[in-house]
Amino acid sequence: MIVILKQSPNPGQLGSLIEWLKEKGVQVHTSVGERNTILGLVGDTSRIDIDLIAALDIVEDVKRVQEPYKNANRKFHPEDTVIPVGSTQVGGGTLTIMAGPCSVESEEQVVGIAKAVKASGATMLRGGAFKPRTSPYAFQGLGERGLAYLKSAREETGLPIVTELMDVTQLPLFKDVDVIQIGARNMQNFDLLKAVGHQEKPVMIKRGMSATYEEWLMSAEYVMAGGNENVILCERGVRTFESFTRNTLDLCCIPVLRHLTHLPIVVDPSHATGKYWLVEPMALGAVAAGADGLLIEVHNDPEHALCDGSQSLKPGVFDAVSRKLLALHAAMKSIHGEGAST
Amino acid sequence: MIVILKQSPNPGQLGSLIEWLKEKGVQVHTSVGERNTILGLVGDTSRIDIDLIAALDIVEDVKRVQEPYKNANRKFHPEDTVIPVGSTQVGGGTLTIMAGPCSVESEEQVVGIAKAVKASGATMLRGGAFKPRTSPYAFQGLGERGLAYLKSAREETGLPIVTELMDVTQLPLFKDVDVIQIGARNMQNFDLLKAVGHQEKPVMIKRGMSATYEEWLMSAEYVMAGGNENVILCERGVRTFESFTRNTLDLCCIPVLRHLTHLPIVVDPSHATGKYWLVEPMALGAVAAGADGLLIEVHNDPEHALCDGSQSLKPGVFDAVSRKLLALHAAMKSIHGEGAST
Amino acid sequence: MIVILKQSPNPGQLGSLIEWLKEKGVQVHTSVGERNTILGLVGDTSRIDIDLIAALDIVEDVKRVQEPYKNANRKFHPEDTVIPVGSTQVGGGTLTIMAGPCSVESEEQVVGIAKAVKASGATMLRGGAFKPRTSPYAFQGLGERGLAYLKSAREETGLPIVTELMDVTQLPLFKDVDVIQIGARNMQNFDLLKAVGHQEKPVMIKRGMSATYEEWLMSAEYVMAGGNENVILCERGVRTFESFTRNTLDLCCIPVLRHLTHLPIVVDPSHATGKYWLVEPMALGAVAAGADGLLIEVHNDPEHALCDGSQSLKPGVFDAVSRKLLALHAAMKSIHGEGAST
Amino acid sequence: MIVILKQSPNPGQLGSLIEWLKEKGVQVHTSVGERNTILGLVGDTSRIDIDLIAALDIVEDVKRVQEPYKNANRKFHPEDTVIPVGSTQVGGGTLTIMAGPCSVESEEQVVGIAKAVKASGATMLRGGAFKPRTSPYAFQGLGERGLAYLKSAREETGLPIVTELMDVTQLPLFKDVDVIQIGARNMQNFDLLKAVGHQEKPVMIKRGMSATYEEWLMSAEYVMAGGNENVILCERGVRTFESFTRNTLDLCCIPVLRHLTHLPIVVDPSHATGKYWLVEPMALGAVAAGADGLLIEVHNDPEHALCDGSQSLKPGVFDAVSRKLLALHAAMKSIHGEGAST
Repeated sequence: MIVILKQSPNPGQLGSLIEWLKEKGVQVHTSVGERNTILGLVGDTSRIDIDLIAALDIVEDVKRVQEPYKNANRKFHPEDTVIPVGSTQVGGGTLTIMAGPCSVESEEQVVGIAKAVKASGATMLRGGAFKPRTSPYAFQGLGERGLAYLKSAREETGLPIVTELMDVTQLPLFKDVDVIQIGARNMQNFDLLKAVGHQEKPVMIKRGMSATYEEWLMSAEYVMAGGNENVILCERGVRTFESFTRNTLDLCCIPVLRHLTHLPIVVDPSHATGKYWLVEPMALGAVAAGADGLLIEVHNDPEHALCDGSQSLKPGVFDAVSRKLLALHAAMKSIHGEGAST
Repeated sequence: MIVILKQSPNPGQLGSLIEWLKEKGVQVHTSVGERNTILGLVGDTSRIDIDLIAALDIVEDVKRVQEPYKNANRKFHPEDTVIPVGSTQVGGGTLTIMAGPCSVESEEQVVGIAKAVKASGATMLRGGAFKPRTSPYAFQGLGERGLAYLKSAREETGLPIVTELMDVTQLPLFKDVDVIQIGARNMQNFDLLKAVGHQEKPVMIKRGMSATYEEWLMSAEYVMAGGNENVILCERGVRTFESFTRNTLDLCCIPVLRHLTHLPIVVDPSHATGKYWLVEPMALGAVAAGADGLLIEVHNDPEHALCDGSQSLKPGVFDAVSRKLLALHAAMKSIHGEGAST
Repeated sequence: MIVILKQSPNPGQLGSLIEWLKEKGVQVHTSVGERNTILGLVGDTSRIDIDLIAALDIVEDVKRVQEPYKNANRKFHPEDTVIPVGSTQVGGGTLTIMAGPCSVESEEQVVGIAKAVKASGATMLRGGAFKPRTSPYAFQGLGERGLAYLKSAREETGLPIVTELMDVTQLPLFKDVDVIQIGARNMQNFDLLKAVGHQEKPVMIKRGMSATYEEWLMSAEYVMAGGNENVILCERGVRTFESFTRNTLDLCCIPVLRHLTHLPIVVDPSHATGKYWLVEPMALGAVAAGADGLLIEVHNDPEHALCDGSQSLKPGVFDAVSRKLLALHAAMKSIHGEGAST
Repeated sequence: MIVILKQSPNPGQLGSLIEWLKEKGVQVHTSVGERNTILGLVGDTSRIDIDLIAALDIVEDVKRVQEPYKNANRKFHPEDTVIPVGSTQVGGGTLTIMAGPCSVESEEQVVGIAKAVKASGATMLRGGAFKPRTSPYAFQGLGERGLAYLKSAREETGLPIVTELMDVTQLPLFKDVDVIQIGARNMQNFDLLKAVGHQEKPVMIKRGMSATYEEWLMSAEYVMAGGNENVILCERGVRTFESFTRNTLDLCCIPVLRHLTHLPIVVDPSHATGKYWLVEPMALGAVAAGADGLLIEVHNDPEHALCDGSQSLKPGVFDAVSRKLLALHAAMKSIHGEGAST
């Protein structure tokens, strides 16, 4: 951490600042310049409150050199984290394909889709029982009944289930779920993060609408600080000025997070784009850029034409996409094997 | 609502769409053009799921003409909402000044600040007992003990208290609070919004980091749909590319919200800017633009130089700012009285 | 400038870096930490290419401590710049009101509006002769003829004229103009900035759609580096996710720029909001926050109803707004005189 | 185009609006609702000024149904545009690799890099002679001399050259260039766009920092409206709140533009990310998502350690990346051939 002081710091205040910093267990190096004096803090600064220092009268600016997260930091945990889920795993060179409907609507629906996506290569079933909806008047999900239907689908297919937890009070209902999803709108619901950190199931944290990489990793850190190291990160687009797509999918998060953290990274092209015809190219892009998995909305082709979400793939289309993703995943291994990588 | 169809819609699908829309209680007008057919939906469309229609194969785009919120909509409630709080009120031509420390640190601190801000013209005491912190390693607030200190300060000064609720399970502790604050990170924590909608205390909803006006009003609608009409909106800056200030304060929300809703609007220049020297000019700008109130961080001048937040005003500075705000609020009444307003 | 090195820098490379930095005339202080070595550069670093250093193999990050602009920097020029324009001036405690039509359409139109806005208190006439339009099929302005009409309006009213220059080749036509406007889309058209830096007329630089404060000041620096110190900065909203208004007006730029630079700051609420009914509250907010002036679109009330821009005020409305702005400007002087300012 | 009127439009104004619209050659369908009256405009609306209509007193909102661009629109030109450049081509199933230094520094440098990148599979040489720099004090490029060195490199290798034009007055110097690049900061320099539209060389338009897809295509339309149909679009990242990377690379633009336009799409991962180690994964992602080409910064390995840009690849690394890109491009053809595409 670097502390840049104003031009002529009050020597008393400067002395008491240096004293206080040393008490926190860090060493302090001072560089006196013409226009600024700079303090270089050396040691473990992750528990120093940067805002507190920035607030001092004599301080012009404070800049962090080290990341504020420890458990999630690749520097302290160089090997990739691999998370076992049922008979499959997330990370470690596999391609996880989580597929299923946005909302669970009926047992028949979710069992039908589960069978279809399994046949096409999906390794996990996703589906919402508790749904975060912008409008209080929109369908809020089947709740506990939806969880029961997901379990039926798991029994029929063997696919582990991933579904969203919206509130601490619902946690007891999630005992039989395989992966707990934390939605983008709850990425900084810190009480929820603490709660899932104090249990053992894997947690998939979707990136907040306008969360920086660091904030996202700090949310992972909340879960890990509670003792649960099984965290999956899921990119689902960020909010920008562009309104043609629902959000702007940030595939660059894949190599950046690979560099910063050891946690596996999954991409959700369905929610990010909001348009079914963008799912295939963006899913292929994600695999080529190194994603560990994908979250794809699939909906059956109903008699009643009104139940097909604008971002959902029909099972037939999903089948084609899934096969391309698996072929590309295999091709990437060969491509990276052939060329000498950076 | 306007539904734009693709070039040659399947007549069977078109017929069943029109049938389905009529069942929802709206009238449908059809305009057939060279390149597109357009359906105009007339009637109450607030309960029609726009995504469901956008998802249809035959639909190219759907555009809303009416706002999706009803209780919060000025069109259906033309008079300004005025919210009584203790012996004061929010809205209705008054200037509410909510002042106090970011975090409650001790009884002495909060009582001392409460006395000072009251003397300077503040009408409400703010202070955090439960603190949303990006890092799990940062100070998380005094919790229940902090609430008790706030109540002591209210007893000493008579100032109503406003403080943040972070989780549904904490709600029973908030029985004696005057205004419940929902933080920016929880603006779309829908279970929390429902919970505060089912009780009677006024609720102040801070705008999410990247929330549109419509999403913000939909969060108000969640609370109001539960029966609680006492909602205050609080602007605290939005996230942009500019990093000099913590966020970009959007004062334009004041006249826009005044137009769209009847709910009172408060501005928080302290969190928005993150720098104490920006609080005065932005608070003055907010009053001139028509805000109903301000939320300002004030911290006492401690012996130990390390307790002054970079965005907090010391009581002496707050006193000067507060007097200017009250003078400007009075001047604006006279200015708007003189000129013929738009 | 602070250079953070990777963990174990190659000593040869480190030595040659330090040597190279010293050649540039700066002193180098080295702090060796457990995990990082930090170089503190002391002296005039404004001509050191930060990208060049960041690019080195041994460097992890480079952070600037000093601003990269000198001529525009308040640190080296503490007094406010005041720019004389005709018989009026911009800055120095005055309130400049630049009013007029978006586009010059006819001599009659612009002369008529000029007379009206002068009567209402405007101090300068604005109007576009060369118009930057997103579509090649939209009206591109009257060009040279438009400039002639503006000059007629100046002759009739005495109001100095401000109008946009879009390309270096048009510069000879701007000899008789009083203030040359550089549009938001050309804020980083560096050849254009150099050209207006090599002549003497005042230059008003509109902020680019997504320009940071620093980039904006660097554009002013381009003009000033050429020898022309008469630069006015004009805020006109930045691009965000919010689409209700055309842009998000950033009034916080006023106190921030006041702190960083000595140049005068003008606000354009018409282009920023895109809606006429938001002009008055945002203009009032700008004055209360300390702006030196406003740029307001005014259009006459035409017989043909189709010529009134959605963001333009009619002369009668402008008259009311202008009187409120002048009253507020006077009130602010008294308010700041009464309270002891920060 | 859809025009939404306010509740009770003045019948005289409504009549004159409808009359005026019909004069513009469009048909008008009127739907009268309870709360709003809606006009549906049918026919060629690309030359109707949407702002003019939005400005009318009786109009609440106007929404476009058709795109405002014609020449660039895939609806009127369904086949992909293929642009011949020297003995190669851009588009049409090929993978164009434009590689070279950010700035031309010397003849030796650029010839050396040209030979190296050609050997690694590049099909075009890129390099800047005129450089847009944020600071007036930074190196501004070798100018005309730089163009001469690029031509030497073309003579030695046969690689066509692509280089940036910053100002209309430099155009005569670009006669021997193969592709003229318009930089992100000049994407809406409309005089420059008109100038390159009136000559025949292919033009590559980089996306502006915060340009929407539609604005970008309107800039292409400016060039095409002048008669030059040889336009290449180049994505180089957009500005968001995330500051870890220089910009946020929007790979989703590839399938979106493929849908909206027939013009070829190239991606620049070097400028977008600003970090050399992100170039390979993002370039691979771009190819998998369907890009027609890449623009990659390559710099030779200099004795003087200070000349390596933080986003540049050394020739050896570029060689590995280029081979992977070509292998992936071949693999994608086979993957898309095997699976039934959407």
